[in-house]
Amino acid sequence: MKFHHHGYVSGDPRVQPAAGVGINRPSELPEEVDVLIVGSGPAGMITAAQLAQFPGITTRIIERRPGRLAIGQADGIQARSVETFQAFGFAERITAEAYRITEMAFWRPGAEDPTKIVRGGLAPDDPHGISEFPHLIVNQARVLDYFAEVAANSPTRLTPDYGWDFRTLEVIDGNEYPVKVTLVRSAGPDEGTERIVRAKYVVGADGARSKVRASIGCTLAGDAANHAWGVMDVLARTDFPDIRTKCAIQSHDGGSILLIPREGGHLFRMYVDLGVVPEDDHGAVRKTTIEQIIAKANEILNPYTLDVRSVAWHSVYEVGHRLTDRFDDVLPEQIGTRTPRVFITGDACHTHSAKAGQGMNVSMQDGFNIGWKLGHVLEGRSPESLLSTYSAERQVIAQNLIDFDKEWSTLMAKKPEEFNDPAELEDFYVRTAEFPAGFMTQYAPSLIIGGSAHQDLAAGFPVGKRFKSARVSRVCDTNPLHLGHQATADGRWRIYVFADASEAGAPSPVTDLAEWLANDPDSPLAATPEGADQDAWFDVNVIYQQKHEDIDINAVPAVFKPEVGPFRLTDLEKVYGTLPDEDIFDIRGLSRSGVVVLVRPDQYVAGVLPLEATAELAGFFAPLLTAGQRAKA
Amino acid sequence: MKFHHHGYVSGDPRVQPAAGVGINRPSELPEEVDVLIVGSGPAGMITAAQLAQFPGITTRIIERRPGRLAIGQADGIQARSVETFQAFGFAERITAEAYRITEMAFWRPGAEDPTKIVRGGLAPDDPHGISEFPHLIVNQARVLDYFAEVAANSPTRLTPDYGWDFRTLEVIDGNEYPVKVTLVRSAGPDEGTERIVRAKYVVGADGARSKVRASIGCTLAGDAANHAWGVMDVLARTDFPDIRTKCAIQSHDGGSILLIPREGGHLFRMYVDLGVVPEDDHGAVRKTTIEQIIAKANEILNPYTLDVRSVAWHSVYEVGHRLTDRFDDVLPEQIGTRTPRVFITGDACHTHSAKAGQGMNVSMQDGFNIGWKLGHVLEGRSPESLLSTYSAERQVIAQNLIDFDKEWSTLMAKKPEEFNDPAELEDFYVRTAEFPAGFMTQYAPSLIIGGSAHQDLAAGFPVGKRFKSARVSRVCDTNPLHLGHQATADGRWRIYVFADASEAGAPSPVTDLAEWLANDPDSPLAATPEGADQDAWFDVNVIYQQKHEDIDINAVPAVFKPEVGPFRLTDLEKVYGTLPDEDIFDIRGLSRSGVVVLVRPDQYVAGVLPLEATAELAGFFAPLLTAGQRAKA
Ligand SMILES: Cc1cc2nc3c(=O)[nH]c(=O)nc-3n(C[C@H](O)[C@H](O)[C@H](O)COP(=O)(O)OP(=O)(O)OC[C@H]3O[C@@H](n4cnc5c(N)ncnc54)[C@H](O)[C@@H]3O)c2cc1C
Ligand SMILES: Cc1cc2nc3c(=O)[nH]c(=O)nc-3n(C[C@H](O)[C@H](O)[C@H](O)COP(=O)(O)OP(=O)(O)OC[C@H]3O[C@@H](n4cnc5c(N)ncnc54)[C@H](O)[C@@H]3O)c2cc1C
Repeated sequence: MKFHHHGYVSGDPRVQPAAGVGINRPSELPEEVDVLIVGSGPAGMITAAQLAQFPGITTRIIERRPGRLAIGQADGIQARSVETFQAFGFAERITAEAYRITEMAFWRPGAEDPTKIVRGGLAPDDPHGISEFPHLIVNQARVLDYFAEVAANSPTRLTPDYGWDFRTLEVIDGNEYPVKVTLVRSAGPDEGTERIVRAKYVVGADGARSKVRASIGCTLAGDAANHAWGVMDVLARTDFPDIRTKCAIQSHDGGSILLIPREGGHLFRMYVDLGVVPEDDHGAVRKTTIEQIIAKANEILNPYTLDVRSVAWHSVYEVGHRLTDRFDDVLPEQIGTRTPRVFITGDACHTHSAKAGQGMNVSMQDGFNIGWKLGHVLEGRSPESLLSTYSAERQVIAQNLIDFDKEWSTLMAKKPEEFNDPAELEDFYVRTAEFPAGFMTQYAPSLIIGGSAHQDLAAGFPVGKRFKSARVSRVCDTNPLHLGHQATADGRWRIYVFADASEAGAPSPVTDLAEWLANDPDSPLAATPEGADQDAWFDVNVIYQQKHEDIDINAVPAVFKPEVGPFRLTDLEKVYGTLPDEDIFDIRGLSRSGVVVLVRPDQYVAGVLPLEATAELAGFFAPLLTAGQRAKA
Repeated sequence: MKFHHHGYVSGDPRVQPAAGVGINRPSELPEEVDVLIVGSGPAGMITAAQLAQFPGITTRIIERRPGRLAIGQADGIQARSVETFQAFGFAERITAEAYRITEMAFWRPGAEDPTKIVRGGLAPDDPHGISEFPHLIVNQARVLDYFAEVAANSPTRLTPDYGWDFRTLEVIDGNEYPVKVTLVRSAGPDEGTERIVRAKYVVGADGARSKVRASIGCTLAGDAANHAWGVMDVLARTDFPDIRTKCAIQSHDGGSILLIPREGGHLFRMYVDLGVVPEDDHGAVRKTTIEQIIAKANEILNPYTLDVRSVAWHSVYEVGHRLTDRFDDVLPEQIGTRTPRVFITGDACHTHSAKAGQGMNVSMQDGFNIGWKLGHVLEGRSPESLLSTYSAERQVIAQNLIDFDKEWSTLMAKKPEEFNDPAELEDFYVRTAEFPAGFMTQYAPSLIIGGSAHQDLAAGFPVGKRFKSARVSRVCDTNPLHLGHQATADGRWRIYVFADASEAGAPSPVTDLAEWLANDPDSPLAATPEGADQDAWFDVNVIYQQKHEDIDINAVPAVFKPEVGPFRLTDLEKVYGTLPDEDIFDIRGLSRSGVVVLVRPDQYVAGVLPLEATAELAGFFAPLLTAGQRAKA
């Protein structure tokens, strides 16, 4: 955590000094805003928490509910989401209160008496050690609370505007605030009152029945029918021995339960499968009562019993795999002629089977993706064309995830003897181990994803995938730490210079690159605005091959030691060495001749380049840096 | 974290439901209180945070200052303190914002040019891996903030009463509230107004110039003279390469600096040694200006320079090793005839050299020690004689620490060639490695520390030392975790039953012990009040030798699976197995025939007993359990 460099911070350093529009933030929703986010679910809240870091941008997030979410909805948190929480600063806190999945049990009809279930097996949840982050279960409400805290503690002091119902919007080109949004007060004394808010951009994060989606003419396509689950969060007495372990339970007559233990040591969730909803159901399934769900659960659990003592929440959750063809308001025929003004994220554009546990996780990655892009465009760092990459990237990913989930579910349901080649299953597991943890995403080359011509220089940082952290040793304070965990969700691009074998400061490709980065007019750093800290837009780090004690910090080139804040203090925390037993060069397959790794603000690897490839580096960033181009023009 | 068992908790689970005196806690200081704590430093705040967990006890903490501490004072946090923070629930949060010491550098006059300092060596801070907790540096103010948060979130909703100056007290025997305390408003519109508050007990945590200490007639004895340091917390530009590493810096003309990097990446503290304060100094040293401190620092750092850009705090800190002969109001001639009513803690009874970095750490252990004892006596769990153990335990420990610190400082200052036997230094290091981390404390046998007759059954849990955690595997949810970290600062005694090799539930000494614990009138659990949860006073845990998957939780005796809360839910989280590669039985040298380990609410091992030693177990707790005795009478 970095602080004190603008002067001593006496209180909680997580509360950043108010700045820009946060200094006198109006409590009332203003007439005109830069970004209006509709819906304070996971997709909306992460977008808000990200945009809140940009002091110059007025972001408001409206929500139909009168206040915070109290209960229910999703609860599965993949390791990728915890990794994302780490960047927002609350991974360790949410982990402390969450349930942690380490193994999963499979129950099935007994061989002797199929009317009684027996434990089939116990499998590790992450056998391949995919991530240093855990797989958690915690109520969606708490995830939202933490994002709300991040937003409130940000320079812009963003808090949600509860009690506003989005009705419709209209994009009127040629205005500074081209999106005209109609809202209606949904709570409070003036309930029912209509309001118009004008926005530069609108993010529709308003869930599966999105009205923003309807306003821009998208529809969901996909599964013909919904699948229904009776879901309950309950406190119960039971003799079922695995009640605190995640379980898939299959009974002899086809009934099945997905059991998810929950935070706090006692609560658990059960998804009781209610099957595919027939077309002529006419809402009948939705009338399933909690008593029926409990009775069904007891049937499936035989010979064990469940004595439910308190129902915290229950619902009939009906969902199918569905997806819109675009995630913004640019029609196919308009592509290339205009840039988007309205975006949809999360359940508004894709829904997933409850079984896959993707919903909340994928939705947050949508929000993380659009957040920094809006920030960069509104701040004038980047051209509007950046915004087109949101739909281009996320629509494909959503499609891939849905396709993959179908394949995965089918294969997972197959019995080992049904495979032609026993290695097939094994292979599949290893190849796809990243899926349940949320690390399958790989973006295709684009304005913000470079080619993979030099991928062999950094085999462990695949271009288009998220930057997988490894441990290094910080020179200035000798601390062993995770390189990736130093990258907070501050909206900055990151340049990691993995050095060649030369000593720090000796004539070498690293020294030349440092010189170029610091002083060349084509360097991306040249775009940094006058008066801002050297590292305001680009966080430039160097990792030497030596151990920390063999690196002379005074010899390290200045670009890796920026001067920051009003006192022009030197930031020494961007200079690293390797750890004796855990060399990041080996662990991530990095070339001993050195390599530059470019990482996006949302943690995805955008490029892998040789140390000497300054022209390619300049070429990659040039189209992304409006301000730099302006300065040079 | 355990919650939801009284019903669903929608918000932050760290906020416990208000109970007892917390339900309508008066904001004004009442006339009569159970415990009045004087001073909201580390010693006072930990006592408050601990007592706040007892719903029936009215504790108030007064503080002369008008509000929270903003800046300055101590900043070194030993691993033992972080371990303590873990029990109070904020270790991971304070670690995230603190500076972490991993190595220490030694600078000395150069061999060629002694006017210039050179780096002598770099030594790991904890070469022996003494603790799983880090050694941190963070401002005392933040430590106090976290304890304040714990207290405010506790069932009693305790918050400090700022702006009250303690003047004097008088113990008037025979009253229900025998301690008459005179206070004066030290802030606010009614400044200067006198108030009388009557208390059952008073804890003087009012620092080195304690008036509570004076009221009970104790004086500090020790070093004849103070040692003085110019201390500054500053932001600076410098070319000193180890500015972010803890350093001891010695210059050619005897000047020396202790450099302590601080949280946030830029701030650091320097202690510039001003030497022993002569008797005829008459406060001259205290007039040392910040300019003089900075100038002296620059001299010592030559050839490096320090350009101080912002001074966050500075002080001339004068201190010597001093100690009172008793920590309560019972005069030597009264011992055995009455129990104490007034206690002193922290700097009020002992002060330490700034170099040792003990002050804040030892003070917190005082507070942790007295807190639960007052809780148990006031709640009627334990007889008043328990309170006599506070002074008996902590005075000796303070004396030992001071003696040891003197020996340690002397030896640390010796050059390797000055030792007779080179192994002497090595030996000393290994033998004393626990000192700087805060783990040297070992209490002598007493009412609450059993004998060590059976120590060989659990070599790694020395009686009288704090319970050193090791990892185990929780059966119900397959989670690998630290056994010790499950023990929160909830005021409960803990009984760890390390099982013999039998299967869970099979006839065995463990099963017999479980039966005895649950049902025998001599079992300490028999003292648990009617209507309270089975585990309200005693947290009974079992650790089997098997792996978690080989333990049938349904077969585990009921005493290890208590029914809790209004719904009588079964707590399954007290049943553990061993980890395949990290067997706690091996790591802590536990007998394969099983062993019972008794642990106090402040985490100290109180006893090690064979599984069959029910009479000894009963005998240990009998004098501690007033209520149990009453019930049986
Ligand atoms: C009732 C319910 C139960 C669910 N149960 C499960 C489950 O058991 N398991 C599971 O994995 N997933 C479940 N989900 C899905 C999971 O919660 C979503 O996948 C995830 O929350 C997606 O996040 P999101 O931000 O896109 O949408 P949401 O979390 O749905 O957030 C949308 C937000 O927009 C608000 N909103 C909607 N319309 C408007 C409007 N017109 N104006 C203003 N605000 C508006 C809503 O009140 C809501 O707060 C459930 C969802 C719902 C709604
Ligand atoms: C000015 C100062 C500078 C220090 N600098 C260092 C340092 O550089 N390094 C280091 O290791 N240690 C330092 N210490 C010591 C370190 O802070 C203590 O060892 C540690 O705080 C001990 O904790 P405590 O709770 O016993 O006492 P303290 O932290 O001193 O707390 C005592 C509290 O009681 C309050 N109080 C005092 N008298 C009254 C009264 N009559 N009525 C009501 N309230 C009262 C005080 O305002 C204070 O908040 C310093 C202490 C002080 C006071």
